[in-house]
Amino acid sequence: MPEVVFRVDQSKSMRDQDVPGHNRWHPDIPAAVTVRPGSEVRIESREWMDGQVVNDDSANDIRDLNLNVNHMLSGPIAVEGAEPGDLIIVDILDIGPVPQETGPIAGQGWGYTGIFARGNGGGFLTDWYPDACKAIWDFHGQMATSRHIPGVRFTGITHPGLFGTAPSADMLARWNRREQALIDTAPDKVPPLALPPQPAEVLAGTLTGSDLERIGREGARTVPPRENGGNQDIKNFSRGARVFMPVYVPGGLLSTGDLHFSQGDGEITFCGAIEMGGFIDVHLDLIKGGMEKYGVSTNPVFMPGNVEPRYDEFISFIGISVDHETDTNHYLDATLAYRNAVLNGIEYLKKFGYTGEQAYLLLCAAPIEGRLSSVVDIPNACCSLYLPTAIFDFDVRPTADGPVRVDRGQCATAD
Amino acid sequence: MPEVVFRVDQSKSMRDQDVPGHNRWHPDIPAAVTVRPGSEVRIESREWMDGQVVNDDSANDIRDLNLNVNHMLSGPIAVEGAEPGDLIIVDILDIGPVPQETGPIAGQGWGYTGIFARGNGGGFLTDWYPDACKAIWDFHGQMATSRHIPGVRFTGITHPGLFGTAPSADMLARWNRREQALIDTAPDKVPPLALPPQPAEVLAGTLTGSDLERIGREGARTVPPRENGGNQDIKNFSRGARVFMPVYVPGGLLSTGDLHFSQGDGEITFCGAIEMGGFIDVHLDLIKGGMEKYGVSTNPVFMPGNVEPRYDEFISFIGISVDHETDTNHYLDATLAYRNAVLNGIEYLKKFGYTGEQAYLLLCAAPIEGRLSSVVDIPNACCSLYLPTAIFDFDVRPTADGPVRVDRGQCATAD
Amino acid sequence: MPEVVFRVDQSKSMRDQDVPGHNRWHPDIPAAVTVRPGSEVRIESREWMDGQVVNDDSANDIRDLNLNVNHMLSGPIAVEGAEPGDLIIVDILDIGPVPQETGPIAGQGWGYTGIFARGNGGGFLTDWYPDACKAIWDFHGQMATSRHIPGVRFTGITHPGLFGTAPSADMLARWNRREQALIDTAPDKVPPLALPPQPAEVLAGTLTGSDLERIGREGARTVPPRENGGNQDIKNFSRGARVFMPVYVPGGLLSTGDLHFSQGDGEITFCGAIEMGGFIDVHLDLIKGGMEKYGVSTNPVFMPGNVEPRYDEFISFIGISVDHETDTNHYLDATLAYRNAVLNGIEYLKKFGYTGEQAYLLLCAAPIEGRLSSVVDIPNACCSLYLPTAIFDFDVRPTADGPVRVDRGQCATAD
Amino acid sequence: MPEVVFRVDQSKSMRDQDVPGHNRWHPDIPAAVTVRPGSEVRIESREWMDGQVVNDDSANDIRDLNLNVNHMLSGPIAVEGAEPGDLIIVDILDIGPVPQETGPIAGQGWGYTGIFARGNGGGFLTDWYPDACKAIWDFHGQMATSRHIPGVRFTGITHPGLFGTAPSADMLARWNRREQALIDTAPDKVPPLALPPQPAEVLAGTLTGSDLERIGREGARTVPPRENGGNQDIKNFSRGARVFMPVYVPGGLLSTGDLHFSQGDGEITFCGAIEMGGFIDVHLDLIKGGMEKYGVSTNPVFMPGNVEPRYDEFISFIGISVDHETDTNHYLDATLAYRNAVLNGIEYLKKFGYTGEQAYLLLCAAPIEGRLSSVVDIPNACCSLYLPTAIFDFDVRPTADGPVRVDRGQCATAD
Repeated sequence: MPEVVFRVDQSKSMRDQDVPGHNRWHPDIPAAVTVRPGSEVRIESREWMDGQVVNDDSANDIRDLNLNVNHMLSGPIAVEGAEPGDLIIVDILDIGPVPQETGPIAGQGWGYTGIFARGNGGGFLTDWYPDACKAIWDFHGQMATSRHIPGVRFTGITHPGLFGTAPSADMLARWNRREQALIDTAPDKVPPLALPPQPAEVLAGTLTGSDLERIGREGARTVPPRENGGNQDIKNFSRGARVFMPVYVPGGLLSTGDLHFSQGDGEITFCGAIEMGGFIDVHLDLIKGGMEKYGVSTNPVFMPGNVEPRYDEFISFIGISVDHETDTNHYLDATLAYRNAVLNGIEYLKKFGYTGEQAYLLLCAAPIEGRLSSVVDIPNACCSLYLPTAIFDFDVRPTADGPVRVDRGQCATAD
Repeated sequence: MPEVVFRVDQSKSMRDQDVPGHNRWHPDIPAAVTVRPGSEVRIESREWMDGQVVNDDSANDIRDLNLNVNHMLSGPIAVEGAEPGDLIIVDILDIGPVPQETGPIAGQGWGYTGIFARGNGGGFLTDWYPDACKAIWDFHGQMATSRHIPGVRFTGITHPGLFGTAPSADMLARWNRREQALIDTAPDKVPPLALPPQPAEVLAGTLTGSDLERIGREGARTVPPRENGGNQDIKNFSRGARVFMPVYVPGGLLSTGDLHFSQGDGEITFCGAIEMGGFIDVHLDLIKGGMEKYGVSTNPVFMPGNVEPRYDEFISFIGISVDHETDTNHYLDATLAYRNAVLNGIEYLKKFGYTGEQAYLLLCAAPIEGRLSSVVDIPNACCSLYLPTAIFDFDVRPTADGPVRVDRGQCATAD
Repeated sequence: MPEVVFRVDQSKSMRDQDVPGHNRWHPDIPAAVTVRPGSEVRIESREWMDGQVVNDDSANDIRDLNLNVNHMLSGPIAVEGAEPGDLIIVDILDIGPVPQETGPIAGQGWGYTGIFARGNGGGFLTDWYPDACKAIWDFHGQMATSRHIPGVRFTGITHPGLFGTAPSADMLARWNRREQALIDTAPDKVPPLALPPQPAEVLAGTLTGSDLERIGREGARTVPPRENGGNQDIKNFSRGARVFMPVYVPGGLLSTGDLHFSQGDGEITFCGAIEMGGFIDVHLDLIKGGMEKYGVSTNPVFMPGNVEPRYDEFISFIGISVDHETDTNHYLDATLAYRNAVLNGIEYLKKFGYTGEQAYLLLCAAPIEGRLSSVVDIPNACCSLYLPTAIFDFDVRPTADGPVRVDRGQCATAD
Repeated sequence: MPEVVFRVDQSKSMRDQDVPGHNRWHPDIPAAVTVRPGSEVRIESREWMDGQVVNDDSANDIRDLNLNVNHMLSGPIAVEGAEPGDLIIVDILDIGPVPQETGPIAGQGWGYTGIFARGNGGGFLTDWYPDACKAIWDFHGQMATSRHIPGVRFTGITHPGLFGTAPSADMLARWNRREQALIDTAPDKVPPLALPPQPAEVLAGTLTGSDLERIGREGARTVPPRENGGNQDIKNFSRGARVFMPVYVPGGLLSTGDLHFSQGDGEITFCGAIEMGGFIDVHLDLIKGGMEKYGVSTNPVFMPGNVEPRYDEFISFIGISVDHETDTNHYLDATLAYRNAVLNGIEYLKKFGYTGEQAYLLLCAAPIEGRLSSVVDIPNACCSLYLPTAIFDFDVRPTADGPVRVDRGQCATAD
């Protein structure tokens, strides 16, 4: 087992750890530890909401989540000798849930997937599914099942939803400027277009007082992926992946968190992965001057893991960039096209007895693939969603006889 | 070999065939043939531009293409007993290029990939690459190589770019209405937002005179994918796929064409696949009332083929929905995110000696995967592009030593 | 399409072709054609029995086969500049059945799998299944089905069963000596231990008279795989494979034939693949001195094709080197272990309604994998057979309810 | 984490555990624990030699191993309600090494592969490599590397080498009878043909005195796979596998051990896997009367795991059943054919600078596939060995230039 360089006591909040992590991006958050290139290290992680969600059959906790808390990150970890312009090579050696036997924290043998209420976060289909919902998933080694979504069982492609380096001060200023400009186009939108810096609930390692206040005023929220990686939610950042992280500040200042037991492409409910606390083991190394050498200017580059489950059969749903409710065309809008593919998938699954909410939660958490099939055939983008048939314990393929519809209950809902 | 139900003499234009095909969508284009459910049939196909592109080292032909011609489709094929609301089950049994030994037509041992000029079609990166370019690909059994893009060799995931059923008259009217509404928002844009009906070059099977003129006035252009399938450009509609096509008119009236030897997800130059003429063998059957049975209201459903090449290693590029040139945020815009992932991939490949145009053409034609990694992390969508490393005859992975850059020439350009 | 360097008129016997092939190994069979390194060529092929088996529902033809005829090979093909000690690089570009529409010859839309009678060839389970049987397979693009084995449908991993270079005179003499020595240990065994040279039915290209007679007396039979490759029946010599063939005589003198639409590991009935005529396209090149460079002294080396069907689920059967009928242990005998694994698989399939003969024929023709799991755990070798579940149109997995047994008819049998 | 039903203190011998395991097969070894169908349980395991091998650079420990000790098994575990004729369904949920940080026991971050000396165990190539050798492997999450075999790095397909149920008294008597009959054919052979019961070092759970003595006299050695499963060394008994174990005594009495971090098909040195201690998590259930329902009479049936690493490129070696040193043919001897394939692979790897011993150890431990390609082409069986190219950090494919040979040191050897 590699040396634990960031340790978490899962019985406590991230705030109360010996060395706390952070929940904003800022270059002045001090490194929790410094490691040498060539090191293999373990980083322990809280689940992204720092333990607000419990293993029960009500979605009240999802409804009432304090969204200023997230994401509770482990780090920053400085890599000795890393300088702006370098690439940090991160080999993801292992990822796993919290090893304790049982307990109240997501990651201790279970995780959760949620649909956020429209007024508290929202999500990809918030116009169709505006209310808070939840599904609890039980872990069986690498497999997950859910009492809230019966009839499925699948292997987790476990990965960190969030992996990033610290922005430079200049980069941070640009982020804040450009995101505020977007917010300003529709400041009252619910859910909002973007999230500005938020002093409430800010955590910045060991910083306190005016230093912490400044991080609260300036620090970028961790929700969006950006030039530093961040909350990319790429499900293939899994075991065996090799990631090349751009360095913007001395030491690079890596942070990670938001571990997912499983997630489909798109993480389509916002809280769509199976969220958990746990650990991640990585090997760290450097390519000096790697950004210039490989033309990396804006985002990490990576090589995905090679131990993802194999599937040989999929049922695939297609969407195009038409708003079918109003019969309106949008120009090459892949987001809309994927939304339609997802809606088509949900309608399909409802014919087998799932509720829309169950189907929506399932497409978030299961290892679906979301593809940009065509983005040039004006005016309609075309996206497709690949659902592996092997995750179902019934035959989910279309046949001349039609689907066998059975009552599959309902996920956890809010009062 | 299945019975040939739509025959093409590849030495002639689609217009001059004994039974011509069509290049517009309209319910009144008469069926070229009627087949029974349970039939296995072969459909021969012209390449999408009806032979305007030649096997040479100049992109003048691409620059001067008549875009009113496309797509030259084979069909319509009526399925006996198919009625609105049914699903036609299409098993794709085989696809191949034109079997003649050598000749001037794309498909006879070679195909092409093009970048359209901004003023004549444009494409995904027309702001970066506004000039016409071309790459010729030679077929070696299932493998393709190109003298215009040395250093790569890959197996074709051969598929029809276009596969559709006829719209009903009402559906067609809706298409025309909604697409004109989009055009009207920016009628002078170059390239245009969408293509309205176009009488020039219209072909509608055996129709002539005022019937043909009406098709010209009313018939929907074949470029976008729509509720009838159409030009979806899904690379996984390959051998072994099973497709469930919605039926909107009696007989269903299937048409196909735009055969691709290979294509990456997104078909990112508009003419981005390796275009060819050839044949497609299908088995046809029916699910009566299948649209209601399976909740299919807007698009086909399909199960992809299981004989696609296996790859175990990818180099992956990430993009987010930020316009990096102006540092402007766009709200969950997956199209922009994918564009950035593509641009990142091009910059990477340039470090190995490819020109931008070569890299762009390569990412169109090679079996890359385009994924919607995250579409909920406001405000930034995150897309990723997976490039299989095995298609290169050099080591394309990042190393501490940096890339080995060699002169790789240039693709075909226009005068 | 590559140049056809060995042409076959499938309406005629191999003997009656303009340039006949051959059915014995001998260095003095003259090259049918000489090709240059770097060439892409097509080789047409008769099915291995030169057309003795017909598409009907009787196995009389299998029972009465003349086994002196096989294998009817196409070649020899000399590679310019190839000298003993070189390796010929063979890229398998394409393989396909006879392209004519319909006809009496295996390969024209159909193929066959047979169980040889014990007195005329025998096979792996001849003590259990001593009588001639046959299954006809219909080709649907890349898929095969059989009216004699209902309930299965699978993609062919098409390959040449036989691919070899000519032996040197000295090597040929050694083959004849060592095989005769084996025969002499049990000269009356039925089926025999090995096959000595056989003048009856000999064919040696254009040779006639005393030259042909000498080939008959000296030429090695084509049944076993040997140092020259030959009848290796490796199912992964499929499209996309790259093979490195050792050269023992000037020009190498490549020959091929015995095309298989599909075969399981082991080809367990002797006539176990789906046999067909057709064509194979290859690219040929040389590694001068390659045998010494890579330590190749006794057999070809190869890199398998990458377009084989993907399967994600198998039901696997195990066998150990115990003769269970007599309860006798054999020392690390992998052949016996695999025989037991096959017998266990047959017993399993019989529970679903197949006859033993059907199950045996299925395990020959379907893309099963046969693995040497352990060959060191004295005294019992352990082999395992992996049967992909996706080839069945019913659920073939074990469940608590037990199998659903239905009447599945019978294969073709002899009078 | 499932309940630990068999607990091991890795600082102690299996003999000194609170509840010891066993190292012989006998129906009278009492169950260590009884579990209910439907349970998920963890079983902890000692490495097979109970800690005799250390992490150093000498193979003296391998040379001097006490082979009467193995295999140190965990169990027996009784399944409530299991009766002879049932099948126990075992889902392998997770497998991992010893979780402690560092220590002297194989499994605590490292494992070993050995070549046994001819006079103390021998192995598949003992006539070629008669001396004791060893390679230590370091674990990096799911990856392994070795200082004794530089240039390779691969993902473990972790599995239990041994998984079995208890034989009935009658079955045990038959085993002893038939194995003694084999030994009697060559009682002085070195290494021996089989291993008779051995009182020395016997361990049988809590049994002592005359009970233990009887187990020593009657208990079957654990080396060979038999009708109860046992030491099958099937590398695909990995995470996600579902196994159907035949029940021969009330409760079934499952035992397991001999955990392998990785192993190639064949486990070709006898001590060929990467040996480790650790844990295995399983879910247990029953199919009542399953042996009759599914025709299972002699061996387990299983469905392999679906999370094995994907490889898309292999270099493959072929062997036939000829003794090339004496030029002698053996009749369809797949073991000899595979031995030749292994020898061919070793000769190939030596050209890149490995010693024969290193290459031999590598082919044992790496995820190679061993296939029975043809077992019917009299007189020569044909086997093939598939070596994934991606495990090497250099290009291991044949090229016209020949291999780049570098000094790769040597594995651990004995004095």
